[in-house]
Amino acid sequence: MSHRFICTERVQFSDTDMAGIVHFSNFFRYMERVEHAFFRSLGFSIVDPPAQGDERVGWPRVHASCDYFAPLRFEEEFECELLVEEVRTKVIKHLIRFWKADGELAAEGRITAACVRKDPGTGKMKAIEIPQRFRDKIQAAPHDELRRPEKK
Amino acid sequence: MSHRFICTERVQFSDTDMAGIVHFSNFFRYMERVEHAFFRSLGFSIVDPPAQGDERVGWPRVHASCDYFAPLRFEEEFECELLVEEVRTKVIKHLIRFWKADGELAAEGRITAACVRKDPGTGKMKAIEIPQRFRDKIQAAPHDELRRPEKK
Amino acid sequence: MSHRFICTERVQFSDTDMAGIVHFSNFFRYMERVEHAFFRSLGFSIVDPPAQGDERVGWPRVHASCDYFAPLRFEEEFECELLVEEVRTKVIKHLIRFWKADGELAAEGRITAACVRKDPGTGKMKAIEIPQRFRDKIQAAPHDELRRPEKK
Amino acid sequence: MSHRFICTERVQFSDTDMAGIVHFSNFFRYMERVEHAFFRSLGFSIVDPPAQGDERVGWPRVHASCDYFAPLRFEEEFECELLVEEVRTKVIKHLIRFWKADGELAAEGRITAACVRKDPGTGKMKAIEIPQRFRDKIQAAPHDELRRPEKK
Repeated sequence: MSHRFICTERVQFSDTDMAGIVHFSNFFRYMERVEHAFFRSLGFSIVDPPAQGDERVGWPRVHASCDYFAPLRFEEEFECELLVEEVRTKVIKHLIRFWKADGELAAEGRITAACVRKDPGTGKMKAIEIPQRFRDKIQAAPHDELRRPEKK
Repeated sequence: MSHRFICTERVQFSDTDMAGIVHFSNFFRYMERVEHAFFRSLGFSIVDPPAQGDERVGWPRVHASCDYFAPLRFEEEFECELLVEEVRTKVIKHLIRFWKADGELAAEGRITAACVRKDPGTGKMKAIEIPQRFRDKIQAAPHDELRRPEKK
Repeated sequence: MSHRFICTERVQFSDTDMAGIVHFSNFFRYMERVEHAFFRSLGFSIVDPPAQGDERVGWPRVHASCDYFAPLRFEEEFECELLVEEVRTKVIKHLIRFWKADGELAAEGRITAACVRKDPGTGKMKAIEIPQRFRDKIQAAPHDELRRPEKK
Repeated sequence: MSHRFICTERVQFSDTDMAGIVHFSNFFRYMERVEHAFFRSLGFSIVDPPAQGDERVGWPRVHASCDYFAPLRFEEEFECELLVEEVRTKVIKHLIRFWKADGELAAEGRITAACVRKDPGTGKMKAIEIPQRFRDKIQAAPHDELRRPEKK
């Protein structure tokens, strides 16, 4: 059972804007990057393989947010820390913290992803209960781990 | 005095992802696009011209969020409606609604931008009171206009 | 028959990088934007509608290039001029010029798009002859129009 | 003296488009990523540190191109191989090959970067001779290494 995943990234030139810092929208790309790496670390892919057949699910976002505390700059290395905040019947909530090398919190984001399956009748995506194969491996982090520390 | 701005956009191919819909991070780019167009409509630029001298301010984001209700697809035209939600001493909060052509709400986002100026001593950005030239033209929308309608 | 299409765009904040100018990769997005607008102006979509059935084609790029002459900056308006450079059996070559408001050439790019259809047997994309419905409306520009002028 | 650099990357979800493959413009971001990693591997940064003072240079692109042979898909790992194609007085030409895991060539791109310095008089960027500190470490690859192999 897992509730935490960490990876280290480096700011790319094309992530920056004319203010000389990472454009605020790119933190959402970083969040997705660590979320997908978390899934891979558990043997899953956010895009279920065709082999799953009728059991294939998708994970569209229903909510995303970010609070910005300190800018990230070109070539800066930072840590993305994903914590599973909540596993509900049909959605998973992720909390992602971006740590600078000196332990300062650069930003804190959240993604809520719904588990969906294509309705064979309408062809539309429909929210479904998260399958057991995911529940067997993903759980919410303990409350004290979710509390935001002053420094890393 | 203004509290609302509307523009129409079209989904570009490079805005989509392999799920065939606009990637969730691009809604934040759309939000910024309408925010900046709103500033231009009032005779401002989000990047103060050098002619402003010591009065030059910047507007970094301290918070951004989005709730997703219905996907946007390639070549779809949609309306971006910006409403000023709140003007505080040092920050402005924008509410942005994305309307599909049939009046369905695709997404609803928020940006909180802080007014900052470079501190001549430290060279760091510091939050300051929003200058009067902005207060003269931007005000919060009336409460009943902020309430989310079922349909456009 | 058409061989030229022009649209006006404005540089968005998220198009810029820390050098304060449009990131070189974004010129390729601008090229695609004008190419797709050109198709729409002729009643086509670069993504053939499902109604085309077995006649649906796609237009993946086999080549793209750009020469950069002068930077584009935030909020600058520029003109994208698309000229059809060549229509071959299976590919179309587009030439796209980016003009600044003062008539200076900012950049000149090229896209070669192949016409492809899904092979029913292998499921793979295969280059095919460009269908007549496109040939009826798209033709190469006369040579003297393709010659690069000093100024607009 | 160095003329080659290799790194391995993974296709991110936001790199894909609705065709299910990496958007053609993102290969130019990948090219920049490996170019900058190459500079770092030699102890340089593409953005000269302020400590360089009057010797600070920049490396804007004057040309970029890409030929596409096979698509890259979500989560696919690929190798970026940079080869220095030519070191001229004021520009460096890089050749970048994108290899799939099975040794197939996905794409081959080129970037020409000019060495520039801010002219103290006009404040404009001006092409200059590449400083010796770069020439001491970067050289063109031998011709037989530049020849494109059938497979990796």
